[in-house]
Amino acid sequence: MTEYKIALVGFGGVNRGLAQLIADSNPSWQATLGFSLKIVGVTDLFLGSIIGRDGLDAATLVRLPAAKGAFAQLPGGSADAMNEEVIKHSGADIVAEATFTNPVDGEPATSFCRWALQAGKHLVTTNKGPIALHAAELKALAEANGVRFEYEGAVMSGTPVIRLARQALAGSRIKGFEGILNGTSNFVLTRMEEGLGFAEAVSKAQALGYAEADPTADVEGFDVRLKVVILANELLGAHLGVNDVSCKGISGLSAADIDAAKRDGARWKLIGAAQRNADGSIHASVEPRLLKAEHPLAGISEAINAVSFDTELLGAVTVSGPGAGRIETAFALLSDIIAIHTAKTGQ
Amino acid sequence: MTEYKIALVGFGGVNRGLAQLIADSNPSWQATLGFSLKIVGVTDLFLGSIIGRDGLDAATLVRLPAAKGAFAQLPGGSADAMNEEVIKHSGADIVAEATFTNPVDGEPATSFCRWALQAGKHLVTTNKGPIALHAAELKALAEANGVRFEYEGAVMSGTPVIRLARQALAGSRIKGFEGILNGTSNFVLTRMEEGLGFAEAVSKAQALGYAEADPTADVEGFDVRLKVVILANELLGAHLGVNDVSCKGISGLSAADIDAAKRDGARWKLIGAAQRNADGSIHASVEPRLLKAEHPLAGISEAINAVSFDTELLGAVTVSGPGAGRIETAFALLSDIIAIHTAKTGQ
Repeated sequence: MTEYKIALVGFGGVNRGLAQLIADSNPSWQATLGFSLKIVGVTDLFLGSIIGRDGLDAATLVRLPAAKGAFAQLPGGSADAMNEEVIKHSGADIVAEATFTNPVDGEPATSFCRWALQAGKHLVTTNKGPIALHAAELKALAEANGVRFEYEGAVMSGTPVIRLARQALAGSRIKGFEGILNGTSNFVLTRMEEGLGFAEAVSKAQALGYAEADPTADVEGFDVRLKVVILANELLGAHLGVNDVSCKGISGLSAADIDAAKRDGARWKLIGAAQRNADGSIHASVEPRLLKAEHPLAGISEAINAVSFDTELLGAVTVSGPGAGRIETAFALLSDIIAIHTAKTGQ
Repeated sequence: MTEYKIALVGFGGVNRGLAQLIADSNPSWQATLGFSLKIVGVTDLFLGSIIGRDGLDAATLVRLPAAKGAFAQLPGGSADAMNEEVIKHSGADIVAEATFTNPVDGEPATSFCRWALQAGKHLVTTNKGPIALHAAELKALAEANGVRFEYEGAVMSGTPVIRLARQALAGSRIKGFEGILNGTSNFVLTRMEEGLGFAEAVSKAQALGYAEADPTADVEGFDVRLKVVILANELLGAHLGVNDVSCKGISGLSAADIDAAKRDGARWKLIGAAQRNADGSIHASVEPRLLKAEHPLAGISEAINAVSFDTELLGAVTVSGPGAGRIETAFALLSDIIAIHTAKTGQ
C-alpha cells in the first residue's frame, strides 16, 4: 500500500481536474496503479491556500467556488496563498505545479518549482514556462536533491509525447520532429477550409472557448514556439532559447491561400519543427507549411495536436491526441506520478 | 559498463537486422543507452548454428550467405540448428526469438520461448504466434523464473504500441482500440483508390515485396486477427483466442465500393478492433470499415500502420508508423532490450 502525499500549486482547471480524478478514482488506483494519492495542501494566488497533513477531502476541494479567497471558507483554510508553506511544509512527497504560464521569465512558477525541488519533493508540472526557460537548471536541481522532475503535460496536455520519445522511441535516433502543437490555430485553419475568413474563424474559436480574448499567442505561433523549445531541448539535446526559434503565425494566410491548397489536395498547417543538421546544430522554426495529403500531419483537423518524429531506424512515427482540456491535462500529472512510482518500484 | 550476452534464434531478416544494428552501433550504445550487446550464439533451422561464448563478430554474421547450412562455413559453426543448445547453454542473458510465425500452434517458436524462460533467460520476440496463442502461459513462466518477457515487435514492428499503451497511457483507462494493422492490405486499398482493381493492386504489392506469393493471410485479415488477439488481451485484459475474433478481409471490396466512398470523402480501411462492452465482455473483430475523413485512421495510406486507442481520460490517442521492415522490426527487439535494462536499473 503505497500512498503519496501531494501538494497542489495553482488550483485552476488542471489541478482541480486532478483533484476530481483523485475523488473519483483513488480507491481503484491501489489495484490498478499500485498507489493512492493524499492531498495535503493546496495553494492558489486567487483562491488562497489550505494545509491538511492528514489529508484533505478531494471532492470538497473540487466543489470550492472560484471566488477570491475561497479557501477561507474551509476549516483551516486561508484567503492568503501561502505558497512557500504549502510547497515546503505541508509534508508532501510530490508537488503538482499548474499555475499560469509566463513566457517571459517563467515566474512565479519557476520559483515554486525551485522550492519544491530544493525541499526534496518530486515535482510534476504542466507549465510550459519553467520548462521552456529553465529546464536545465531545474533538472540539475532535481538530480542534486535525488528527486524526479516530470513534465509530460507541458506539450500536448496528456497525449504522451515526451515520454513516448524518451522511453518507447529510445534508441531509434530521433533526427527531428514536426508538430501541430496548438489546437486553437488548427481549429481556425479547419474552419477556414470550410469557407470562413480568418477573423470569423477566430471569433468562432473564441465563442467555443478554444481561443482567449486575445488570440495572439495561439495564432501568431508564440505558444507553439515554447513547445518547440521544450521538444528540441528534450529530444534533440539542443540548448535553444525562445529567440533561437524563428516564428511566423497563421494570420497572414488568406482564404485564397487555403482554397488554392485545397484544390491541390494539400493543407496549410501551423508547424513547429526542429531538426538536427549535418554539423550537429539544430534548426528550429514555427511557420505555416503547405502539407501534401500523404504527409503524416495532413489529416490532423479541428483542435487535435500531433507530433511526427523523424527517426533514423523507423522513419516517421506520429502520435496524435488532445492538446488541451482540463481532465486531459490533469491526466498528464497523473501519468507523471505513475512514472515516478514506476521508477521507484522498478516495474 | 553493462554488457548483455544475447542469443539469436532465427537468423532471417529481423535478427540479421539486429546483428547489423549491433555491428554499426554497439560502441555508441554504452554512452547513449547504458549497455552494450555481445552475441554469444545464433541458431536458424535453415542456416545451422554457432556458439561463441566470448562473443561472435556481428559484422561477420551479417555477411553470412543465405544458404542452407551456411553457419558451417564459420570456425566453430555447424550446419545443424542446435536450438536447445544455443538457447540454454550459450551463456546468454537474453534470447531474441525471431523465427517464422505459425498461426496454428505457434511452434516451434513457442518451444524456443519456453526453453529460454525456463533456463532463466530474458526473452524478446517479434513473433506473433507465441504471443497470440500462448502469452498467458509464457508470462507466467517469465514471472516464475524472475525474467522479463517483452514483445513490442509482435504488433506494428518497431512502432511503439504495446509499450505506449502500457506505460505512457497507463491510468488513461483504455476502453478499446481500432487499428490498421496490416501494411499489405492498406497498400492494396491505397492503390485501388488510384483506380487499380483488387487483383492488380495485389500484384503490385507482390512485385514490390509487400505481399507474399500467397497473399491470403494479409488480405483476408488473418494476420490482423492475430494482432487483435494480442492487443485485446494485452490492453483490455481480455482472454481471447483466435476464433473469438470475427474476421472478414478486403477481397470482397469492389472498385465501385472504393469509388463511392471516395465521392463521399470517405475511405475503406481494413480495421482490427476490440472494445469493452458495458457488461465487461470484449467484442473483437476484423473487417473493412468505411471511415469518414475526420476519423483518426482515415489519413493512413500506403503500407503505414496505426492504432487509435479509445481512452476515457484523453479520448482518441493515435500512433502511426511502419508496420514491417527488417531494421524497423529489429528495432523492436532493441527497444525490448532497452526496457529490460531500464527495469533492471530503475532509470
